[in-house]
Amino acid sequence: MEGRRGKLHPAVARIREAVRTALADLPRQTIVLVACSGGADSLALAAATAFEAPKLGLRAGAIVVDHGLQADSAHTAETAAEQCRTLGLEPVQVRAVEVGGDGGPEAAARSARYDALRDAADEFGADVVLLAHTRDDQAETVLLGLARGSGARSLAGMAPVAGLLRRPLLEVPRATTAAACIASGLRPWHDPHNDDPQYKRVRVRHEVLPVLEEALGPGVTEALARTAGLLRADADALDVLAADLAETAVRHTEDEVVCDVGMLSTEPQAIRTRVLRQAALEAGCRANDLTAGHVATVDALITGWRGQRWIDLPQGVRATRRNGFIVLTPDSASGRKV
Amino acid sequence: MEGRRGKLHPAVARIREAVRTALADLPRQTIVLVACSGGADSLALAAATAFEAPKLGLRAGAIVVDHGLQADSAHTAETAAEQCRTLGLEPVQVRAVEVGGDGGPEAAARSARYDALRDAADEFGADVVLLAHTRDDQAETVLLGLARGSGARSLAGMAPVAGLLRRPLLEVPRATTAAACIASGLRPWHDPHNDDPQYKRVRVRHEVLPVLEEALGPGVTEALARTAGLLRADADALDVLAADLAETAVRHTEDEVVCDVGMLSTEPQAIRTRVLRQAALEAGCRANDLTAGHVATVDALITGWRGQRWIDLPQGVRATRRNGFIVLTPDSASGRKV
Repeated sequence: MEGRRGKLHPAVARIREAVRTALADLPRQTIVLVACSGGADSLALAAATAFEAPKLGLRAGAIVVDHGLQADSAHTAETAAEQCRTLGLEPVQVRAVEVGGDGGPEAAARSARYDALRDAADEFGADVVLLAHTRDDQAETVLLGLARGSGARSLAGMAPVAGLLRRPLLEVPRATTAAACIASGLRPWHDPHNDDPQYKRVRVRHEVLPVLEEALGPGVTEALARTAGLLRADADALDVLAADLAETAVRHTEDEVVCDVGMLSTEPQAIRTRVLRQAALEAGCRANDLTAGHVATVDALITGWRGQRWIDLPQGVRATRRNGFIVLTPDSASGRKV
Repeated sequence: MEGRRGKLHPAVARIREAVRTALADLPRQTIVLVACSGGADSLALAAATAFEAPKLGLRAGAIVVDHGLQADSAHTAETAAEQCRTLGLEPVQVRAVEVGGDGGPEAAARSARYDALRDAADEFGADVVLLAHTRDDQAETVLLGLARGSGARSLAGMAPVAGLLRRPLLEVPRATTAAACIASGLRPWHDPHNDDPQYKRVRVRHEVLPVLEEALGPGVTEALARTAGLLRADADALDVLAADLAETAVRHTEDEVVCDVGMLSTEPQAIRTRVLRQAALEAGCRANDLTAGHVATVDALITGWRGQRWIDLPQGVRATRRNGFIVLTPDSASGRKV
């Protein structure tokens, strides 16, 4: 970490500072766990946390999740755990998980990993789990969200803080974690999945981002990450305003979710459609199936009312305008003849 | 337009429907001008407008802007004008403009073109000018905005309606305008600038979008255009909320723009930062120079107050926290010693 003449390498300094900032608000004695794969990002994070946590009076350990997806995954995990122990982290634990198939291989692995991290936090009484996502990961997430086309929330990337998860490196370039590992004499594991073009994220990383940088100029990764932060703030504000409005404009009967057209019609589209979307979810639509297009059709019952019949939504939910209300009826409650 | 058996080609039908929808609210006798370059998009728009406008009781003409940037531009413009006359549009006029150099060649050409269109609308008493931007143009605009990284407004693309300008084809793919021209026997001009990779937009079209489609799957163009619409609605709502707040939280003295910290501090970040940004513009910052990073630093005078000194903003504007207010001082008013 300290070079020949005792000078701190700037990459190590930057990561330590990011970790220090992310942990500054925690009371002493808080237990913090680093999620470590042994890759450069999480190894650099583990090293910085091992250095900073004691200075803040915190206890820092590490969890290595063994996804069991590669033949030597147990060995890889044990190596990473050993590196974390050498850094002075304690406790350090390998947790083996079983990855299901729901939502594709990336989503299934993520879901199993996050469950394991939550379980570990429970077991060790940790209030915080640190994840090593970098600015490059954030930019990739924004581009992956673009393909969904479902607005601010899908472009808002990953949150710096979400429940017990914190991501101290979201503004740190991936190149900095690699440089920090070299400067610190750490030997990161290179995950072969990171080069496997069957994964959308890998294609975004190796194919899309370089072409974007070439076409639009350098700084695209940084711009994407900054965009994520700004759109996250927008989505947060609009979600709160929509929730406030829903308190008076939406009510739940035994069978139905009922929205007041008069109250909604004077609101801006961005807030109105968020209220309608949330109402449709409460009536039984699944978030992944309910598109902006569906919500726009329901909104047209307010803004373009000309006596339309009902709108069919996913999961058999139906939206009808009746006596100045948008009524959302779950499939089960309808007693409809199909 | 009508095929052998008198059946309307679907591409022609789609464009006519888009034009009909965009013009539906106009009173009879309104004069509408199509901005026509002679390219496939604007030629298809001109043809559809010539067909639909009379049925709605509107008068439709066309303006061809000759940018004088290519050797044969006068001839190209005259050919386009002749095609518009043949379609039955009236009046049809070629307007030659001089393109300056401000902001790069694309921005300068656009600025000269829009000025000419406004002048033409004035001269002919037109209330509406139709532009032929397609869904593909919109997707390209979103990607170009990504590189700026300045949030929702820079990703909101082009507005369907902005003052006298209307863009009826923003949800119509470019392939549809090409197909409509073929089906209608129209011979569009191919602008060589559309293939010149010195333009960022051309690189986005020919290099970035194909790679994005390949990495993320088909439908990216549509998703980008849909994203633009959603983020436009978000930005509109938040701008209105910020303007409402500014009415009570911001006041102007002779020299300064003064923001009430108490009133701003309880607002969500997305609204607070919009108020601060607008205040900084009113104090003399130029929109292009004032970054999200600048605004975040000013916001830190509210959310992270620890007795900082002033913040220097573009154009010599200075932000200072004083007695519970953020005071923005223009360069001229400061009487500072530099």
